[in-house]
Amino acid sequence: MSYEDVMADGALDDPEAAGSSPPPAPGASPRLVDLIRSHGVALVRGVPTDEKGTEALALRIGGHLRSTLYGPGMWATSAEASAGEEGFRDSAYSNDGLALHTDCGYLADPPGIQVFNCVVRAQEGGASIYVDGFAVADRLRATNPEAFEFFSRTSISYQCFDEGCHYMAEGPVFRLGPLGEVVQVRYNDYDRAPLDYLPNEDIDRFYEYHASLSEIIRDPSLVARIVLEPGECVILDNHRALHGRESFKGRRRMVGCYLGMDELHSSARVQRM
Amino acid sequence: MSYEDVMADGALDDPEAAGSSPPPAPGASPRLVDLIRSHGVALVRGVPTDEKGTEALALRIGGHLRSTLYGPGMWATSAEASAGEEGFRDSAYSNDGLALHTDCGYLADPPGIQVFNCVVRAQEGGASIYVDGFAVADRLRATNPEAFEFFSRTSISYQCFDEGCHYMAEGPVFRLGPLGEVVQVRYNDYDRAPLDYLPNEDIDRFYEYHASLSEIIRDPSLVARIVLEPGECVILDNHRALHGRESFKGRRRMVGCYLGMDELHSSARVQRM
Repeated sequence: MSYEDVMADGALDDPEAAGSSPPPAPGASPRLVDLIRSHGVALVRGVPTDEKGTEALALRIGGHLRSTLYGPGMWATSAEASAGEEGFRDSAYSNDGLALHTDCGYLADPPGIQVFNCVVRAQEGGASIYVDGFAVADRLRATNPEAFEFFSRTSISYQCFDEGCHYMAEGPVFRLGPLGEVVQVRYNDYDRAPLDYLPNEDIDRFYEYHASLSEIIRDPSLVARIVLEPGECVILDNHRALHGRESFKGRRRMVGCYLGMDELHSSARVQRM
Repeated sequence: MSYEDVMADGALDDPEAAGSSPPPAPGASPRLVDLIRSHGVALVRGVPTDEKGTEALALRIGGHLRSTLYGPGMWATSAEASAGEEGFRDSAYSNDGLALHTDCGYLADPPGIQVFNCVVRAQEGGASIYVDGFAVADRLRATNPEAFEFFSRTSISYQCFDEGCHYMAEGPVFRLGPLGEVVQVRYNDYDRAPLDYLPNEDIDRFYEYHASLSEIIRDPSLVARIVLEPGECVILDNHRALHGRESFKGRRRMVGCYLGMDELHSSARVQRM
């Protein structure tokens, strides 16, 4: 997966893919749904830089947004807006870089789709980074099959503490389908729970294999990097693509939301009717 | 599971369990969360017979409602209100009886909790019925171990067509945890998709074993039956309890909503802190 691929497929400046405003065309956008399913990522330009316009685009992918502990609909990150005396509730709300990860591994069914629309780009830095988790799995399977086998059979537990809630869920880093193909990636070093439920030998294996895995994840040849401009909206398959960002100076504001994988698949079925 | 058990445990007329109105106490209701987790069902009396009051109670179980294709929050069923010239969109919106089932098997993660508050009871009939799916599993395992094994290892596919969407998901009738214990029931004869993805011998087995399974599910000694009065609100673990209703005459109106199992478990963890 690279941004060049996605751009070459024409998800840019495309009125069929972009949310038109106002009003948004009803129903799923076939082109956009196809791009997400084939690439795990799509980029749409010219999206209105507000929550309403971003939501209109999201609703053209799936029929309704996914509620999470972060709210029923749109979220917004802004370093300036969220900095309090006690610091940041979540690493996402700081100026720091964020290592590549998938979101919400502490939920039984992590949201399938994540929408990120750039409202304000940072003064300096703040590039968005992505890696195709399926490509990572392929390389690990080829170079270190024992590690791949470990990460596809061993459930790793994640957790999240927030106001009034404590979420926990677990799953393998690479969930396999009936034919042994990778169908879902669940990977987040920030949210990982203690490994004390694993046998001692598996804890040792975890750290050994984690080194191989994270080396592949951070390999620059696999990482797509883009500095988003306002109105450039990235749509990610959170069961496939890992995302992160480089550190930045100044204000950087994104708005976005989650959609369920059920909704993406439903949209794909409806457009084939 | 029977209603007598639940009532004996005191989830009735209990201000700690019931939603107080206005305003609802913040945070999860420990008593109610415990009852749902230990019994798979709880009954709360004196709940306001409107969407707002029902939602207040639901929010005391989990921090936020689960959005589905049926909307972001509360749903309402009313035979009179939904009867159109072309009939009913879903069997739930008619006067017919509904056989025992779990909801939303066509989603990857069916909602963990379902809330049913009675607003208007039927003129005649309309009893609510429930069965503990874990008890059903125990009995099937004891009386027909081959059938239990089939239903715990074979994924059954479910689907739902509605306006602009076509959902599909699959899972075993009895999903097992790491120790072989049943952790989730997924069973709905209305929403079952064609079995054409199964090998022929498994299709034969399905129908043979389905007869044994449905006989247990409908065994009157396992079925709890109650005619709900206005303001009586049933809260069900939709990963454990099957629900249905008897046919009725006249108007019968229920309001309710879904919550995620993640949210129930989160509430239980927070109250242990």
